[in-house]
Amino acid sequence: MTTSSSSERGEANGLAAHQYGVGARFTLSVYDSDYVRIILDALAKVDDEGLTIETNDISTFVGGSEQRVLEYLCGVIWQAAATGVHIAAAVLLSRGCPGEIECELPAGVSALGADPVELPATGMRARAHWSLYPLLDGNSAGVGAANTPGDHMDPIYDAIKMAKRDGVYSGSDHFATRLDGDLAQVLQTAANAWIAIGGKIQHVVTHVTLSMNSPTLAET
Amino acid sequence: MTTSSSSERGEANGLAAHQYGVGARFTLSVYDSDYVRIILDALAKVDDEGLTIETNDISTFVGGSEQRVLEYLCGVIWQAAATGVHIAAAVLLSRGCPGEIECELPAGVSALGADPVELPATGMRARAHWSLYPLLDGNSAGVGAANTPGDHMDPIYDAIKMAKRDGVYSGSDHFATRLDGDLAQVLQTAANAWIAIGGKIQHVVTHVTLSMNSPTLAET
Repeated sequence: MTTSSSSERGEANGLAAHQYGVGARFTLSVYDSDYVRIILDALAKVDDEGLTIETNDISTFVGGSEQRVLEYLCGVIWQAAATGVHIAAAVLLSRGCPGEIECELPAGVSALGADPVELPATGMRARAHWSLYPLLDGNSAGVGAANTPGDHMDPIYDAIKMAKRDGVYSGSDHFATRLDGDLAQVLQTAANAWIAIGGKIQHVVTHVTLSMNSPTLAET
Repeated sequence: MTTSSSSERGEANGLAAHQYGVGARFTLSVYDSDYVRIILDALAKVDDEGLTIETNDISTFVGGSEQRVLEYLCGVIWQAAATGVHIAAAVLLSRGCPGEIECELPAGVSALGADPVELPATGMRARAHWSLYPLLDGNSAGVGAANTPGDHMDPIYDAIKMAKRDGVYSGSDHFATRLDGDLAQVLQTAANAWIAIGGKIQHVVTHVTLSMNSPTLAET
């Protein structure tokens, strides 16, 4: 576990967040013809201090400590949703595999946890489909950096229990768990399950597809 | 390997696609105020015969054979993009873990491949961020249904080679491989890597976030 102070500096067990590959990739979709202004306004209103932000035509990379990455994601999505238009956001959180094609971890590093993130409530409801991928290595011992035992489904069941405890579990569909609650709580639950499992398994990725202000939901 | 005829019937090694959990979940985002009509029109124009389709406010589940699922996804995304508006699609393909919370595989089933899919070119360019998750079980032998050896990164490197061979590899960013080409070829490459790895590893999921008609790309 890290201390609060090291977490604030973007470190996990003495390793900087970027060295451990902590970060997000997200695509913010705005279902409105004025989407360029809405997205640019949302980005302009959110503090990106301490973060590495790289945007292209497909998605945006956000690198930094878990707390700062999640604050940024929550802030940008909140600002876009606060316009009242229907939005979706496809969010990927990854840890334990820095670099691009290859995992460029410093030698001797294995699974590293971090402090859970804390996000203040936004007052805005989000619904999401959430998937979690603990990327274990297989049964041939000695291959790969991680040497983590067990069934890959066990951490997923633990994560679903966390979502139930947090009050945002809304059911399980094919390939994804449905979350429903304040945007901040939905993101916090997904992030904290990812961080908790990251303390045991080096390379863990989670995907969250969020929907806000959906007219489909309003009809139901 | 399956034969073409069994694949057409939605079977993999004698197991129906739904029994093996073959399917997709996708969110189609239309960056236009007329998005309801554009999405409904796209859905109405695409043949869903032989598929199970379940839509809610977050995403749509598509169950069926690999070939039919991919034809459907390609068709719906193509129809929406053909309006000329900027769209994004977050697509998840999964195999080897049917059911909702629990993997409800029939007893004795392990990794099952299938025939590669073939999609006719659409004439429309798509760019995508692509991630692939081979969900191995860990080193404690005897746990879980899968007993697949190796490093989880090896199948990912193989998939990147397939994308290069198919001519749609466009670089590797943090946490994702960038694909660029005809919409059909981008989806086909992602699907066929997922199917090929599925022949060795039971539970494999891939995520593709596609962007089409982006003004950001037009500016570059």
